[in-house]
Amino acid sequence: MGSSGGIVGNIKRHGLMNKLTVIKIGGNVIDDAAKLDSFLDAFGNIEGYKILVHGGGKVATAIGDKLGITSNYVNGRRITDKETLDVVTMVYGGLINKKIVATLQGKGCNAIGLSGSDGNAMQAGKRPVKDVDYGYVGDIRQTGINTSLFKALHSEGLTPVVAPLTHDGNGNMLNTNADTIAQEIAKAMSSIMRVQLIYCFEKKGLLLDVEQDNSVISHLDEHSYTGLKNKGIITGGMIPKIENALEAIKQNVAKVVIGHADDLPLLISGNAGTQIRSAK
Amino acid sequence: MGSSGGIVGNIKRHGLMNKLTVIKIGGNVIDDAAKLDSFLDAFGNIEGYKILVHGGGKVATAIGDKLGITSNYVNGRRITDKETLDVVTMVYGGLINKKIVATLQGKGCNAIGLSGSDGNAMQAGKRPVKDVDYGYVGDIRQTGINTSLFKALHSEGLTPVVAPLTHDGNGNMLNTNADTIAQEIAKAMSSIMRVQLIYCFEKKGLLLDVEQDNSVISHLDEHSYTGLKNKGIITGGMIPKIENALEAIKQNVAKVVIGHADDLPLLISGNAGTQIRSAK
Repeated sequence: MGSSGGIVGNIKRHGLMNKLTVIKIGGNVIDDAAKLDSFLDAFGNIEGYKILVHGGGKVATAIGDKLGITSNYVNGRRITDKETLDVVTMVYGGLINKKIVATLQGKGCNAIGLSGSDGNAMQAGKRPVKDVDYGYVGDIRQTGINTSLFKALHSEGLTPVVAPLTHDGNGNMLNTNADTIAQEIAKAMSSIMRVQLIYCFEKKGLLLDVEQDNSVISHLDEHSYTGLKNKGIITGGMIPKIENALEAIKQNVAKVVIGHADDLPLLISGNAGTQIRSAK
Repeated sequence: MGSSGGIVGNIKRHGLMNKLTVIKIGGNVIDDAAKLDSFLDAFGNIEGYKILVHGGGKVATAIGDKLGITSNYVNGRRITDKETLDVVTMVYGGLINKKIVATLQGKGCNAIGLSGSDGNAMQAGKRPVKDVDYGYVGDIRQTGINTSLFKALHSEGLTPVVAPLTHDGNGNMLNTNADTIAQEIAKAMSSIMRVQLIYCFEKKGLLLDVEQDNSVISHLDEHSYTGLKNKGIITGGMIPKIENALEAIKQNVAKVVIGHADDLPLLISGNAGTQIRSAK
């Protein structure tokens, strides 16, 4: 009897049914047509249930500029006024999302695009104004990820492609960071499935030496992270990235992987990128 | 026993389960925020399974103009070049679609936005070039409406909000007329449900006298249509509209109604607009 039949096959199939891979891509993939196409080839081939979360890329800024809508930033974060919200709704929820979905369909992957309002997929509250009014920016609510919807789409054999847009349940779209959305989906879905979360970015992983692309730290947990942070090896923008990953692990995400989009199959098989797990 | 219990109640519920209302709205509703809001109130209150198909409106043209993308027309039909396709994908699939979906969510209607590529909802072939190359315009394929998907979304209690965009199954989005999409969905779904198709436009129905808004022809079938056409009462742009409606009836759509968006509840109850059915 082959490995796909009998009890072994059933367990494998059962395993796949309960395994979810959440993958986030950003502008460095989205802005490059050839890279995006080969990434989507690899994504389409992933076995089991998978969810793709995409960010924005330069096209939103370029279109905003052409429309005479200039983005304002405070502390490196974009202020989303009404006009900017319209631009990101168009570009993230329309142009980029549908381009990815249509491309996946062309590759035999039955994708479905989702912004937060679609099927009430992701509900958020407008960020409260403290020192800065970020405008129409949404922080995902405690039970804001609609796990029933994602489960139902899975049962139908559909692969969600998620735009970085939420809604407030009162008729308004909100702009939400794609990293955060990927993390929140992964955490919420961990209550019903075994979830791995993969962040694709422009580096091969967390580097011991930022000048050396091949100095990837292959495994990380809370202990080793603290050590590397104290030694000044993990600094700057990597700190929130890793702390978010560790937080996801604490909330039952099985594994978080950080690495380069070109390496997607290797990131999934555990043979590239930085694999973050809970300390044994 | 009340009418909602027992056998009567079961039959009623069963009836609702198998009844579908497909409604199309165009620019005259979409471009007017107050009208759109009150229309969506009425839409949200429709009982049974319902699908909303929306057109474009002036916003696509306005955004195209701002982006320096001018629309070219041949015989009154827009030529969809690559840049125009991007604009309609953004505006129809992103801005308008998500605005409607978020608004419906705010009204307690669990809407989900769909462009043709989402879940392979609507597949089309690029229109062949004869005298005119219409560019990225799609004609829906024979079995291009994914009735299984629409049925599955219904089972999940979701209300599809459909943008006038199809895909070719090979990675490309296509621009498709919203009237046509509504008609094709209605025809295809008639194989599994009892379907009524409602076209909302700027008039109260088909008029006996175009100068008299209240001269609505309340009922029409193939016989009375032929008579009215021969008398020169039905002319111009109404001819293809009515002929498409009669074609839908021939293909088992139970009823087509043409009327004003303001009258939606009356259009559904059969107390406004022009009700088109098969000749007895």
